[in-house]
Amino acid sequence: MPKRIVAFGEVMMRLQVPGYELLTQANTLQYSFSGTGVNVASAMTKIGYDGFLVTKLPDNPLGDAAIAFLQKLGINREFISRGGKYLGLYFLENGFGQRASRVTYTNRLESSFNTAHVSDYDLDLIAKKADIIHFCGITLSMTDDVRESMKVLAKKVKEKGGLVCFDCNYRPSLWVGGYSQAKVHFEDMLALADIVMMNEKDALYILGMETAETSRGEQLKDLIPKVAKRFNIQTVAGTHRAINSDNTHSLQGYIFKDGEFRFSENISFSVYDRIGAGDAYTSGILHGELAGFSPEKTVGFAAAAGMLACTIVGDTPMSTEAEILTAMAGTIEDIKR
Amino acid sequence: MPKRIVAFGEVMMRLQVPGYELLTQANTLQYSFSGTGVNVASAMTKIGYDGFLVTKLPDNPLGDAAIAFLQKLGINREFISRGGKYLGLYFLENGFGQRASRVTYTNRLESSFNTAHVSDYDLDLIAKKADIIHFCGITLSMTDDVRESMKVLAKKVKEKGGLVCFDCNYRPSLWVGGYSQAKVHFEDMLALADIVMMNEKDALYILGMETAETSRGEQLKDLIPKVAKRFNIQTVAGTHRAINSDNTHSLQGYIFKDGEFRFSENISFSVYDRIGAGDAYTSGILHGELAGFSPEKTVGFAAAAGMLACTIVGDTPMSTEAEILTAMAGTIEDIKR
Amino acid sequence: MPKRIVAFGEVMMRLQVPGYELLTQANTLQYSFSGTGVNVASAMTKIGYDGFLVTKLPDNPLGDAAIAFLQKLGINREFISRGGKYLGLYFLENGFGQRASRVTYTNRLESSFNTAHVSDYDLDLIAKKADIIHFCGITLSMTDDVRESMKVLAKKVKEKGGLVCFDCNYRPSLWVGGYSQAKVHFEDMLALADIVMMNEKDALYILGMETAETSRGEQLKDLIPKVAKRFNIQTVAGTHRAINSDNTHSLQGYIFKDGEFRFSENISFSVYDRIGAGDAYTSGILHGELAGFSPEKTVGFAAAAGMLACTIVGDTPMSTEAEILTAMAGTIEDIKR
Amino acid sequence: MPKRIVAFGEVMMRLQVPGYELLTQANTLQYSFSGTGVNVASAMTKIGYDGFLVTKLPDNPLGDAAIAFLQKLGINREFISRGGKYLGLYFLENGFGQRASRVTYTNRLESSFNTAHVSDYDLDLIAKKADIIHFCGITLSMTDDVRESMKVLAKKVKEKGGLVCFDCNYRPSLWVGGYSQAKVHFEDMLALADIVMMNEKDALYILGMETAETSRGEQLKDLIPKVAKRFNIQTVAGTHRAINSDNTHSLQGYIFKDGEFRFSENISFSVYDRIGAGDAYTSGILHGELAGFSPEKTVGFAAAAGMLACTIVGDTPMSTEAEILTAMAGTIEDIKR
Amino acid sequence: MPKRIVAFGEVMMRLQVPGYELLTQANTLQYSFSGTGVNVASAMTKIGYDGFLVTKLPDNPLGDAAIAFLQKLGINREFISRGGKYLGLYFLENGFGQRASRVTYTNRLESSFNTAHVSDYDLDLIAKKADIIHFCGITLSMTDDVRESMKVLAKKVKEKGGLVCFDCNYRPSLWVGGYSQAKVHFEDMLALADIVMMNEKDALYILGMETAETSRGEQLKDLIPKVAKRFNIQTVAGTHRAINSDNTHSLQGYIFKDGEFRFSENISFSVYDRIGAGDAYTSGILHGELAGFSPEKTVGFAAAAGMLACTIVGDTPMSTEAEILTAMAGTIEDIKR
Amino acid sequence: MPKRIVAFGEVMMRLQVPGYELLTQANTLQYSFSGTGVNVASAMTKIGYDGFLVTKLPDNPLGDAAIAFLQKLGINREFISRGGKYLGLYFLENGFGQRASRVTYTNRLESSFNTAHVSDYDLDLIAKKADIIHFCGITLSMTDDVRESMKVLAKKVKEKGGLVCFDCNYRPSLWVGGYSQAKVHFEDMLALADIVMMNEKDALYILGMETAETSRGEQLKDLIPKVAKRFNIQTVAGTHRAINSDNTHSLQGYIFKDGEFRFSENISFSVYDRIGAGDAYTSGILHGELAGFSPEKTVGFAAAAGMLACTIVGDTPMSTEAEILTAMAGTIEDIKR
Repeated sequence: MPKRIVAFGEVMMRLQVPGYELLTQANTLQYSFSGTGVNVASAMTKIGYDGFLVTKLPDNPLGDAAIAFLQKLGINREFISRGGKYLGLYFLENGFGQRASRVTYTNRLESSFNTAHVSDYDLDLIAKKADIIHFCGITLSMTDDVRESMKVLAKKVKEKGGLVCFDCNYRPSLWVGGYSQAKVHFEDMLALADIVMMNEKDALYILGMETAETSRGEQLKDLIPKVAKRFNIQTVAGTHRAINSDNTHSLQGYIFKDGEFRFSENISFSVYDRIGAGDAYTSGILHGELAGFSPEKTVGFAAAAGMLACTIVGDTPMSTEAEILTAMAGTIEDIKR
Repeated sequence: MPKRIVAFGEVMMRLQVPGYELLTQANTLQYSFSGTGVNVASAMTKIGYDGFLVTKLPDNPLGDAAIAFLQKLGINREFISRGGKYLGLYFLENGFGQRASRVTYTNRLESSFNTAHVSDYDLDLIAKKADIIHFCGITLSMTDDVRESMKVLAKKVKEKGGLVCFDCNYRPSLWVGGYSQAKVHFEDMLALADIVMMNEKDALYILGMETAETSRGEQLKDLIPKVAKRFNIQTVAGTHRAINSDNTHSLQGYIFKDGEFRFSENISFSVYDRIGAGDAYTSGILHGELAGFSPEKTVGFAAAAGMLACTIVGDTPMSTEAEILTAMAGTIEDIKR
Repeated sequence: MPKRIVAFGEVMMRLQVPGYELLTQANTLQYSFSGTGVNVASAMTKIGYDGFLVTKLPDNPLGDAAIAFLQKLGINREFISRGGKYLGLYFLENGFGQRASRVTYTNRLESSFNTAHVSDYDLDLIAKKADIIHFCGITLSMTDDVRESMKVLAKKVKEKGGLVCFDCNYRPSLWVGGYSQAKVHFEDMLALADIVMMNEKDALYILGMETAETSRGEQLKDLIPKVAKRFNIQTVAGTHRAINSDNTHSLQGYIFKDGEFRFSENISFSVYDRIGAGDAYTSGILHGELAGFSPEKTVGFAAAAGMLACTIVGDTPMSTEAEILTAMAGTIEDIKR
Repeated sequence: MPKRIVAFGEVMMRLQVPGYELLTQANTLQYSFSGTGVNVASAMTKIGYDGFLVTKLPDNPLGDAAIAFLQKLGINREFISRGGKYLGLYFLENGFGQRASRVTYTNRLESSFNTAHVSDYDLDLIAKKADIIHFCGITLSMTDDVRESMKVLAKKVKEKGGLVCFDCNYRPSLWVGGYSQAKVHFEDMLALADIVMMNEKDALYILGMETAETSRGEQLKDLIPKVAKRFNIQTVAGTHRAINSDNTHSLQGYIFKDGEFRFSENISFSVYDRIGAGDAYTSGILHGELAGFSPEKTVGFAAAAGMLACTIVGDTPMSTEAEILTAMAGTIEDIKR
Repeated sequence: MPKRIVAFGEVMMRLQVPGYELLTQANTLQYSFSGTGVNVASAMTKIGYDGFLVTKLPDNPLGDAAIAFLQKLGINREFISRGGKYLGLYFLENGFGQRASRVTYTNRLESSFNTAHVSDYDLDLIAKKADIIHFCGITLSMTDDVRESMKVLAKKVKEKGGLVCFDCNYRPSLWVGGYSQAKVHFEDMLALADIVMMNEKDALYILGMETAETSRGEQLKDLIPKVAKRFNIQTVAGTHRAINSDNTHSLQGYIFKDGEFRFSENISFSVYDRIGAGDAYTSGILHGELAGFSPEKTVGFAAAAGMLACTIVGDTPMSTEAEILTAMAGTIEDIKR
Repeated sequence: MPKRIVAFGEVMMRLQVPGYELLTQANTLQYSFSGTGVNVASAMTKIGYDGFLVTKLPDNPLGDAAIAFLQKLGINREFISRGGKYLGLYFLENGFGQRASRVTYTNRLESSFNTAHVSDYDLDLIAKKADIIHFCGITLSMTDDVRESMKVLAKKVKEKGGLVCFDCNYRPSLWVGGYSQAKVHFEDMLALADIVMMNEKDALYILGMETAETSRGEQLKDLIPKVAKRFNIQTVAGTHRAINSDNTHSLQGYIFKDGEFRFSENISFSVYDRIGAGDAYTSGILHGELAGFSPEKTVGFAAAAGMLACTIVGDTPMSTEAEILTAMAGTIEDIKR
């Protein structure tokens, strides 16, 4: 029986203007549902695990549509609570060339998820079933209720022998109080985590650590081992990304484990939809860990998963293990018949 | 120069599932922008007046799209304030036959409009320019700030010689405190109004009036003259509507003026999109009054305008005076070449 | 080998707003190509004949698209001339219920077809191959060049033993000089025709004939035999149509032949797209004549063909003989598996 | 925990021409996945049960898409076998008015499902979990392998205490050998069934029973009790349906249980998509039985479920218990806000 | 109060095949309305001015749709005359890689605009309100009536103290008599203009000037000062553009003012829709002049405006001043949240 | 009168997911009809020949839609046989960047074409009319009946003086018995062919020839002359293709004739839809041969035809001779007005 990967997080409706028109020019939208938790649970399901989402959705047609979408991705609905009034939404206008994509949010703080209390979730059942539970820093920025749910749930799962994965993912616009407000909550989550997604910037800015190094690479090598040690983290991983002048993107992944760094190649590739690539990378790391890959293979697999997610429509990774392994090998096929 | 018709009200984004699918089945939405004020300002513009909207919209791509849509309808942007954070949205799933249409709202109370203060609007300019200003009972249900803006604006316009039109439009789900909360505010607005849209139910339930009559028709004839007298209203008008078993709708309009009732024929017709028919009816009454139609002609014109609005895609009436007059005459043309 | 049915006429591009939006509301159009000649040639091809069109199309991407569309319908491209500069266009907005459909034309008089000269067509080849040639009164209203081509072509075909069919189809807006301008040209065509589509109104208004009868039915029975005699026409046929208050249409066909009238039942039916129904009726008459049906069967077949054309998207009839015969029988099937 | 409803059957891809164009006119198709088993499992899931499907799907992108679609409907993927090569497809062209809808099948006998062997399914697990298992006569017409799987599975479930439901659903075009080939297999299934969907025609033609009655109603009352007795069936139910001349459909349901007949009202209603109404009716019967409704309520609920399925896009019923109960009450709501 | 920018010019309907299909392959078109005047008036409105268009549109549904579109862009309808019969149309098929885009025009010379007389426009009102009036060489090629309107209007505006902007924009296919026909009209307009858009080719070919220089750059530096002097032009500006082998485009702008040349960087960028880039460049120059930018900043701003217009769907620039300034700075943002 | 180009081959329905979604994500498909024979007959028709297809299609709505599509391409329906039951289908999911396109077939061996017997085709008529007949190796892999039809037809055409063209096109997945099964059939066809499309891999693997050379270029130069000699082939031609790392494709064509090789330039270009490029190349060779081009011009023309086919939506080449000649010249036009 496949292992159970449980993600905790908000589901948002993504309303995207088709093609390259602006909201002001178009009159139709394509919609889907996403969020970091959705992406991780879905990506792990495609790879072969049983994916679950712990969230709360309104008991109205929008909530129904969200659940149908999650189920289509193969995510189990067992841990989804219903109630509250609203679902967060965001509008996406695709950029082109020198014109950047634009995201416009509606007021998500009143959503069912962000107004949920820890008692809305069946903690014992979740903790009993979860082999891994995944959290992220976006969710951590929301409300006190949400933060409490995260910490309680992480503890419960840990107690029952599950692994806790935490993706730092600091979004400046979401923390009214800035790094100083965020620091304590990130420290709490890092102290509970077994696997952490982050890079040197998180150490510098959120944790307020210092380094004498000046290049990103050297800062990473200096700071990540200290973080791992301080919070007793089994595996730390992350990426460095860049947008190139020819519109391709570059991505290099790293993993730090058992006192050693491993880096993937720095790969460049065309991008169709960049949202969700980080969550695909995370899923690659989790799969490598669960499947007992060597760290070298894990980091390469995760980078390839991130790259493939950029070739897929929508936020949510859709690639199987076989497809990711093929992409790792690097040959471009003409047509698969 | 055409007279200036100013409407005060919220602009909402309407997100409609195309065809007859449910939100849970589809993946695209058609969007437009509407609201009672939008509908009245637009309908009057089509008839030949200069339509204005007093509202507040966020300074983001959603607000830009709303303004572009209003401008497309020919509504002047001069009285639109920018700022605040959100735009109210609603989702519409079309019903079919025995399955009713469904509307799902997002949290509109945090919208730019509903968080605006009276100081956001240029009262003096509006009052100076408005020949008629239109308000409705939906807007009245929102927040204290909104209610204050309505009353201040109505007074200012009245002082400058403009007419005040008020459409009672009581929506039970929007008044937490029910009729007892609503009564005082409706009374305030009625006291300021020259033209009022309402029927006997509003008199009975909102104003708490009593009658010995039992049929809707007789209640109307008993109560409306008393309302007109009590609040010193020049013109009261409204409709009785029904859905027939063969899926057609029926509509009969009335107007009460100079102590006399006039009724339109009770017309039956096929319906494509029923939302906005009431606002078209209101516009017909306003045009009749401004154009000096006889009350008989005014009420027939208004009923035809309401009927035509049901044959138009979207909330917003799109018919010219000539088209409404043709529809009043009642012949169905084959194809206009 | 199937008989060859040749139609002479203009090809126009039909640009239709999808659904029920107005041009002012929408931003996409569906396009196809049509015209009376196209409809008749296509309808006859579907029934099993070899359909040809004599027309002229510009040698540009619009002309290419028109030819591709005609070929898709199975119409042979052999008699199509290329050259000139333009293609006529019309925009169609679908009506709904009490709101009529609207057609807006562009300037068609400068089209390749309407500026073509008789020398643009290979008269001898056409005359040699045509078993029937079809003309209509819309084409006759265009230009002197077009009228000359029609008369020359009709004579040539007649000389070679082919039948000439003429559909009166008088469109008031196209004859600047009214009936007095039209009369001589209609008389010329009637004198050349073997099969004529018309009804009593054409006799009264175009030909200026008189009758003491007052009902449409009696006028028809009085005038058509006189027309047939005066112009020595083998077969005259036509329809009476009505739009009912429940949005269904009614159609009753007649045929006058060998001195006798036969009438179809007066059938009522739902209508999806009413344009082209008359051409389908014509095709039914032509097929009845060619296939040796009894006049009773011919007129019933033609009426059923007209009815089915109203259930088909676009101007052009698409029904096979078998489908029309089934519709004549009158049972509504649930689903054909 | 909700009861588990397991359906056995083929999943087919439905490729539908949008709107009312013919395959020959259009260039896009809408696709979904359906089948009697899919419809029943989905309908029961919407009502609140845990729906499962026993089927086999190819391990390719078509099979993946089918599973995603089933999951979206909330159907559990646990009993779905993967392998074989193909998925059956059918094309649907919507009829309009007098023009019937048309269905065109591809060669389904080579599908993964129709070439599967009983050993492809985990019989013990299914039998252990199923509270009800549903089969239908369409599936029974396929191949010897399929028939064997049905009978083995029905026996296993029965042994473990589950109920067996069988829907006769005889499709003439699928039985090469006609009624004489079918009879023995239907008898085998009836002998295993607890709940049976059928009407008097099935008794007359498939089972070859005789009656002196001539009206459908009297034949039903004569024959169904005999069938129930002969095969020891707890509950027999079914419908009589008709297409009315105004394009509405009528449906009257019956249930025979404990020696007594109960009939629903004969309801008439507008139809958007008629496919799947029978499966919705079946689900209504199953729910009534499981929920302990009175037979009167059960048959009314089932008829309302069948009616609502006709207002929904696609084959698959989408209504909740609450929605069906509202429809039973019979009021048409304007708009649900 | 913002300055008023008035453009004079024809509005055409743009009918575009979606994606990369040919007219012969597709069956839908996307439509919008455009023209040099539309583009300039719209671009200036987006930047913050009040944009007006002087044009004439037919009083039919096509004219209504054009006006709605212009209003959506924020263009004021006050100076638009209604009447005449037709609207010019053009069809656009998108090219891909080595296959060029194709434009097919209908007969625009009979359009309402091209058959309008100077008396159709309210010259005094326009002259009184216009801070700048914009004309272009495409319009100049149309008819004598159009040319007369241009010259009269330019004079009137100049007399009232407004600035006259003229964009040379010579289209060879539109001038039957070639450069010799065009020369006198261009000279007339240059003599009236304060701001002129042109480059060395216009001086060489339209004005018939000579130079000893051979490179484009040196010819420009030699000829433009002579043109400025001869016609007493305050500001001359223009671009050099190229298509690169990797499908990107390059653009370098220049401005000549107060006896000095300033050049923007030669920027390269990806192109989504190249039509309208020149008009965006013009708008950038006009804004720089009105806002008192330094010539260096003006030419850089104009080049960035031209580049951004290539990333926008449709002919019409949609960028705000802030967006253009960001693009000038040259960083590519990932996603604007 | 243009020469008649007859192609023999299967017509398949191509069902393509629009844009870049997976089958599992989307719900609409675009359909067209294609096949090597379709592509060659259509490409030759566009160039100016009369194209025919010898095939068999089912007598149902799918077959009707296929014929309509072929006719739209200008292909003559005279040699198309109707009957059998099915049409082969394939699903296409577009790849993006590192994610390859995927093709999923349905069971085509039961199609009307693959179950047709030689007696289904009017051999004498075909042989009498064909100036060239074209066959391909994909068709050769199907069934014994198909292979027999190919060989009989090739012989008949050859006897009547027509040319036989054979495109080797070996698809490994279609030959169950591999090269050893295929060899004898390829030898039979080569012995009948006048013009052959192949390269060195076909000689090495299908024919089992040997060479001491190691580079592809040298192997080609060694083996092709031996093949031409052994099978007495007038003209052999083919391509070498590559996918470059920047997503462009490269293509170099060769022709071997009269004992000499000629090579086109190795051209690189952007690709929209790569399917059908080989058939466009074949058409270029056939046209060069029929038009009496020099071998240098023929091979350049064929390569340009192949390149242009990659810029066209769908499998089927759509370019005229003039367009191909322009592309040969190599300039990229901006917009063709």
